[in-house]
Amino acid sequence: MESHRIEMFALRGIPDIAADDDLVVVILDALSDDKLTLRNGDVVVVTQKIVSKAEGCLVDLRTVEPAADARALAEVVDKDPRLVEVILRESRGVIRQRKGVLITETHHGWICANAGVDRSNIATDNAELVLTLPKNPDASARRIRKGLMTATGVDVAVLITDSHGRPWRLASVNLAIGVAGMNPIADLRGQSDRFGYQLQVTTVGRADELAAAAGLLSGQAAEGLPVVIIRGANYPRGDGQATEMQRPAARDLFR
Amino acid sequence: MESHRIEMFALRGIPDIAADDDLVVVILDALSDDKLTLRNGDVVVVTQKIVSKAEGCLVDLRTVEPAADARALAEVVDKDPRLVEVILRESRGVIRQRKGVLITETHHGWICANAGVDRSNIATDNAELVLTLPKNPDASARRIRKGLMTATGVDVAVLITDSHGRPWRLASVNLAIGVAGMNPIADLRGQSDRFGYQLQVTTVGRADELAAAAGLLSGQAAEGLPVVIIRGANYPRGDGQATEMQRPAARDLFR
Repeated sequence: MESHRIEMFALRGIPDIAADDDLVVVILDALSDDKLTLRNGDVVVVTQKIVSKAEGCLVDLRTVEPAADARALAEVVDKDPRLVEVILRESRGVIRQRKGVLITETHHGWICANAGVDRSNIATDNAELVLTLPKNPDASARRIRKGLMTATGVDVAVLITDSHGRPWRLASVNLAIGVAGMNPIADLRGQSDRFGYQLQVTTVGRADELAAAAGLLSGQAAEGLPVVIIRGANYPRGDGQATEMQRPAARDLFR
Repeated sequence: MESHRIEMFALRGIPDIAADDDLVVVILDALSDDKLTLRNGDVVVVTQKIVSKAEGCLVDLRTVEPAADARALAEVVDKDPRLVEVILRESRGVIRQRKGVLITETHHGWICANAGVDRSNIATDNAELVLTLPKNPDASARRIRKGLMTATGVDVAVLITDSHGRPWRLASVNLAIGVAGMNPIADLRGQSDRFGYQLQVTTVGRADELAAAAGLLSGQAAEGLPVVIIRGANYPRGDGQATEMQRPAARDLFR
């Protein structure tokens, strides 16, 4: 089945999120405020930041005692040793270290700057708070999807996204780190093109393309619009996980 | 200015493209067939493949005599020595070589598999044809933009896109390799978030997010839908070039 038209809209009524807020309720309320309803096949794209806030993934740096390895690494990368301690706790390994740059592999297996630990956009008088990635973004996506489907009766996919830098290319793009209700990779293998050749590009990172598309709306301003609905997109239905997009180290020439 | 809603549609009436076809005419005809008109601010996203075909970037492998370095490299990567010769002619350097994998930096400065040289989807009785990237995708984008603007009187941006694999993540995504009428990177530096912190993610690869969004429509099937219009997206107007997204080698830790 081909699709010729896609529509995307950002929900405007998402309030500041605090620990233990129910994102399902928040999303349903914002839909209702905008007089919108979910439809079968919609993709609900949620930024990592509000998922982490709802799940209480906050660390107060004043409570963090950096260990010796964090202090040594902090010297190299020229960052707050307490922040480096938090980053190391979130990581299974360091990929690159250089002044101003710390790229690690998170416990989930994502490779990104600072293990995705983020300092901006946290509402508090306390300037020492940092936000870590959700413990299990795929599980977060499944939980949100289940809640939305139970409340609305329609079948949607849910993505949790984060903005990552890339090798070779400047600037960050929005990517999927959690997935529910779809397989993140569309497999075109076995399909021939219209002239009978085997397709050279055989797998497409559909979840990442959806995440990047949503980033056009969610990441456009400092304010942020943390929930975007994508309607009309073709994606492989299934029970996949975002971690399926992680390239196994043995097949990765760039670690 | 914030945008809350984006619409994307693929043009259905794009025929097979041959050398010297005028893509401006082709796009205008396809718009007309679909009873659509361009509007100010639209982004016209065109896959590299039809640009290369229109520009005659075809090489018949039967005419290619591989040099000694191409023959040696072909052994290592287990590819047709004539194809490797074409790839090397398109490249300023080899980034990685391994059985089945040849990643190079093209003369434009893009790092990708096989210098973007592609075998599929070429209409001919001659199975030995391969398609190279356009000589200057930014210039191609500018040419298409100028033609569309002259014909329609509206101001649009134009992207030329290609599908690339990535380090760390499996599967390919659509990216911009040519840009006209916009700056590819949105610079959020200096903006504070709503709680007064400086934004941690300061530059966003807007052209790549637009390309990935279009990839949801253009890359969904073997047939392909090589022209997608994106309407309502916020992007930085300007006279930028896609090559501005190339990370300088000195700042790239993954070569």
